[in-house]
Amino acid sequence: MESAVVNPRDLRFQIFDVLGAEALCARARYRDHDRESLDAALDLAIQIADEVLWPNAPIGDRDEPRLENGRVRVPTAIHESVAAITDAGFVAAALDYDRGGMQLPAVLLQACLGVLKAGDTAAAGYLMLTKAAANLLDVHGTDEQKRLYMEPLYAGRYLGTMCLSEPDVGSSLGDIRCRAVSAGDGTYRLSGSKMWISGGDQDISENIVHLVLAKLPDAPPGVRGISLFIVPKIRVNADGTLGAANDVAVAGLNHKMGYRAISNCLLSFGENDACEAHLVGAPQEGLACMFHMMNEARIGVGISGAMIGYAGYMQAVRYARERRQGRPVDDRDPTRPPVPIVRHADVKRMLLKQKAIVEGALALCLTCARYLDDMTTAAVEGERRRAALLLDILTPIAKAWPAEFCQEANSLAIQVHGGYGYTRDFPVERLYRDNRLNAIHEGTNGIQAIDLLGRKARLQDGAAFKALTEEIRADIATARDLPALAEHGDALAAATSEIEGATTAIGTARAEGRIGDSLANASLYLNALGHIVVAWLWLRQAHAADAALRQGAAADDAAFYRGKLAACRYFFRYELAGMRPAIALLARVDTTCAEMDADLF
Amino acid sequence: MESAVVNPRDLRFQIFDVLGAEALCARARYRDHDRESLDAALDLAIQIADEVLWPNAPIGDRDEPRLENGRVRVPTAIHESVAAITDAGFVAAALDYDRGGMQLPAVLLQACLGVLKAGDTAAAGYLMLTKAAANLLDVHGTDEQKRLYMEPLYAGRYLGTMCLSEPDVGSSLGDIRCRAVSAGDGTYRLSGSKMWISGGDQDISENIVHLVLAKLPDAPPGVRGISLFIVPKIRVNADGTLGAANDVAVAGLNHKMGYRAISNCLLSFGENDACEAHLVGAPQEGLACMFHMMNEARIGVGISGAMIGYAGYMQAVRYARERRQGRPVDDRDPTRPPVPIVRHADVKRMLLKQKAIVEGALALCLTCARYLDDMTTAAVEGERRRAALLLDILTPIAKAWPAEFCQEANSLAIQVHGGYGYTRDFPVERLYRDNRLNAIHEGTNGIQAIDLLGRKARLQDGAAFKALTEEIRADIATARDLPALAEHGDALAAATSEIEGATTAIGTARAEGRIGDSLANASLYLNALGHIVVAWLWLRQAHAADAALRQGAAADDAAFYRGKLAACRYFFRYELAGMRPAIALLARVDTTCAEMDADLF
Repeated sequence: MESAVVNPRDLRFQIFDVLGAEALCARARYRDHDRESLDAALDLAIQIADEVLWPNAPIGDRDEPRLENGRVRVPTAIHESVAAITDAGFVAAALDYDRGGMQLPAVLLQACLGVLKAGDTAAAGYLMLTKAAANLLDVHGTDEQKRLYMEPLYAGRYLGTMCLSEPDVGSSLGDIRCRAVSAGDGTYRLSGSKMWISGGDQDISENIVHLVLAKLPDAPPGVRGISLFIVPKIRVNADGTLGAANDVAVAGLNHKMGYRAISNCLLSFGENDACEAHLVGAPQEGLACMFHMMNEARIGVGISGAMIGYAGYMQAVRYARERRQGRPVDDRDPTRPPVPIVRHADVKRMLLKQKAIVEGALALCLTCARYLDDMTTAAVEGERRRAALLLDILTPIAKAWPAEFCQEANSLAIQVHGGYGYTRDFPVERLYRDNRLNAIHEGTNGIQAIDLLGRKARLQDGAAFKALTEEIRADIATARDLPALAEHGDALAAATSEIEGATTAIGTARAEGRIGDSLANASLYLNALGHIVVAWLWLRQAHAADAALRQGAAADDAAFYRGKLAACRYFFRYELAGMRPAIALLARVDTTCAEMDADLF
Repeated sequence: MESAVVNPRDLRFQIFDVLGAEALCARARYRDHDRESLDAALDLAIQIADEVLWPNAPIGDRDEPRLENGRVRVPTAIHESVAAITDAGFVAAALDYDRGGMQLPAVLLQACLGVLKAGDTAAAGYLMLTKAAANLLDVHGTDEQKRLYMEPLYAGRYLGTMCLSEPDVGSSLGDIRCRAVSAGDGTYRLSGSKMWISGGDQDISENIVHLVLAKLPDAPPGVRGISLFIVPKIRVNADGTLGAANDVAVAGLNHKMGYRAISNCLLSFGENDACEAHLVGAPQEGLACMFHMMNEARIGVGISGAMIGYAGYMQAVRYARERRQGRPVDDRDPTRPPVPIVRHADVKRMLLKQKAIVEGALALCLTCARYLDDMTTAAVEGERRRAALLLDILTPIAKAWPAEFCQEANSLAIQVHGGYGYTRDFPVERLYRDNRLNAIHEGTNGIQAIDLLGRKARLQDGAAFKALTEEIRADIATARDLPALAEHGDALAAATSEIEGATTAIGTARAEGRIGDSLANASLYLNALGHIVVAWLWLRQAHAADAALRQGAAADDAAFYRGKLAACRYFFRYELAGMRPAIALLARVDTTCAEMDADLF
């Protein structure tokens, strides 16, 4: 199967050969699946991405959603893209068969969603939020809330949103001003503004289910006082039919650099004191409920970052093979025809860097999804707990690392195209604009870094960090016994020891009360640990490729495996090695930035 | 003087305190200038940038040039911006007084043009090309060509273009297909297509002067066969009045991600065999003539990259001081009001990185301009030759380094703004889109890297490289005697020795016939040597700041100087140190990328 946006061969390699997804079919929940059914799900996603999402994506970018008479209009092409995903069943794909689902393992589901995001991450965004909202209600909603709101969300009849930020508070949720008061009949009246609401209004679905953070009267200050509410755009009667419009208004549309196909709204709730809201879960436990949705959303952002980078890489490779220009530096005879630019060393460098980053980012996200499977369906409880621990520490990395480095890959995809890449006639400039959002939304990369270094790396006395380094060391041990990989095993062992040293030094500074100093380089810490994790996952890929080559792969397959070994080599020699100075800086708890006086800028 | 786009205090510091521009007034050519007149030129540029260019820039971005009935229409706001620059005399500012110029030293002129580019690099682009075209004709044109074309260009009545690329050849000029044949009357008939022509058509000026590369019949293959021609959009009569339209058609407009205010055209010459062209210079010496224009254009691109980054930094600092959100990590009491985000360590890191990069990039470009002054007006011939040598090796760095790293600064400016930075309501997303072009046009950064490593670093047996390291070592020696700078002096000495070692190793590989291997990591070489050069120029700035502080600066001034020392410290500890692995890789002439088989992607 060919594709413009992903390499299906690579997806299967990562899912089945490296992550052993087929073994999941032995577990009770997935026993009706086999390699064929899992492949079929992936093929379906690839087909939709290539045939519907990818061709529609430039339309959603060019004809971005508009506000007309208080209602947001989305181009028809994007309606089609949303319908294609819903009709294929991907919103509910993880559910039980008897609830209309496919009981798809998380690693397969996330791979399929990733493929859709490579096709058009903005259009897919409507359904990512919808799935997350439905999943949240599945865990925290009452039976009636599930019937009235969750079920139409899974069916794609309603679409969902996530309303956290406000114009003045952004990442600082403790300061939100939205208020909800009891109406005395079991419902609440909600009032206030919410900012940056993706899919906050649209004309795609019958109704919209907003999940809104707000404070009840007398709530304590800070994040502890936050509750969670369902606010439908159109009220829903007890029999599930639509009632009157709810008191929710679109106060404005944000016009973004990219990610344009999904509307982004400033919403105003309760301008007429008539915004009906329904409490989800217990009062003042809204943030805990929402975080259930946010962790999933964060891994989703990571996959989006990875796959936008991936689509750019696919385009760059194709262009570099077709475009002829110039001659090799060691054979400049102007009477000979120009060569395809893929033969120029600097173009090879740019492609190799993209390959190493985007396939590495995909490995990171799929590995998280694989731990999600183990967390929920592994046979032994210890294994489930360990998977949860690993997922905890990997989630902020999975959110931030692809957004940071696949953006560089997207920039290189433009560079490979030269001037053409800077025009709107080629998709790489849109991908570059789209991906730039991923470092910002769902908690900025800076917030992820503080979460990683200030919380996750310290969790249970560093148990999550320890579990991660144990996993890494196990693969190092295997690699050191293989001639093709011993060099990388040694390099990863050294980097792992160094980041352990840095983590200890930072912990000591914190124990001495130097909390500000200890967190000042959190972003560097996330990037460095992220490189170590991605290097580790490259080592795993290289191990599988090396094994296949030693078993004598066919010619086409051999090229694929040799490509994997080359990208692994590049990642270790150029990227992982490049992180060593940052780790040294972390190990000495450098205070250059912390000490900067804000008046000196 | 306040400004939204530059820090006037920094400009004056760099121009006068570090680069000693006032001393130029002692030279014959600049003897009518004094500190006051030079300051006045700078103030004028700042005023135009802030009052005209900056407010008009979003209009040129939103209402990009359109093609209507074969003619390009540019928004009125951009006409205003172009007129403001022309009317202030900046196109002709370097000329003699008796030719309508200001006899402005290059360092001042480039600073002024840089300020204008911070205001709107796209609008300023029309005049950068015009100035370059006029300068070229000043050197290579006949008296008649000067009268008919050059003079109206300097006056801003005509605007100029630079027609090199074609749809299929891009950077590979030897393959161009445009042809010119003698018309028998001293003129030529030119035919063919030119791609990526900035300002290729517009409705701003009376006429357009295209400088076009084309081949005469029987020209040898490759770059040696290229000649240069003037092709006016409207033919010009011998008395300077406008004649009939020439045979030049706009075949299409390129729609770019950024840099939108300046039209970018596909031009078709001689569709009716009636495209009148005038040979400039000798036949087949077109590329040499054009390169005269291209080196100036390359430094100009560097300044554009630097100043777009600078404008983004200015915006980010202002936003970070005004925007309140969250609390310090070591004092999270939610009952206290949120603090300005400039107090958060990660925001300080992002601002410090931007400051270190953009002020460093500006120093790089102004230093080149200062060498330009020495090359043309230094009293001693040896000094002039040495300045030319230094300018030779610094030009590819000045073109590529700001484009590469100020783009990162522009990305951080978005990140400091959070979600707002991703919307078109704030200028930082436009700056990010604008700056992305600078790594592509006027020779991609990859081409500059090959020029640097394959040509400039080897020039005259490495004389330019040697001159550069001598300059660096002189400042290292000074720094090592100063307590505040000794650490940096040591770090720069080590890095300089390492890059010398790498340069030697690469030279050896080349001498052994491994030309491909020797150039495979040219981009890394440019970035690494660029970091060393920028670190050196930071050391010079730090030296001036340290001296001023030791002499007892006033409070405001002291804050400025302490900011310089902090940014220098950041650049050395975070950025220069971060280049060491790349230098190690260069020193071992790593072949990971060179060896990559193009079939393995």
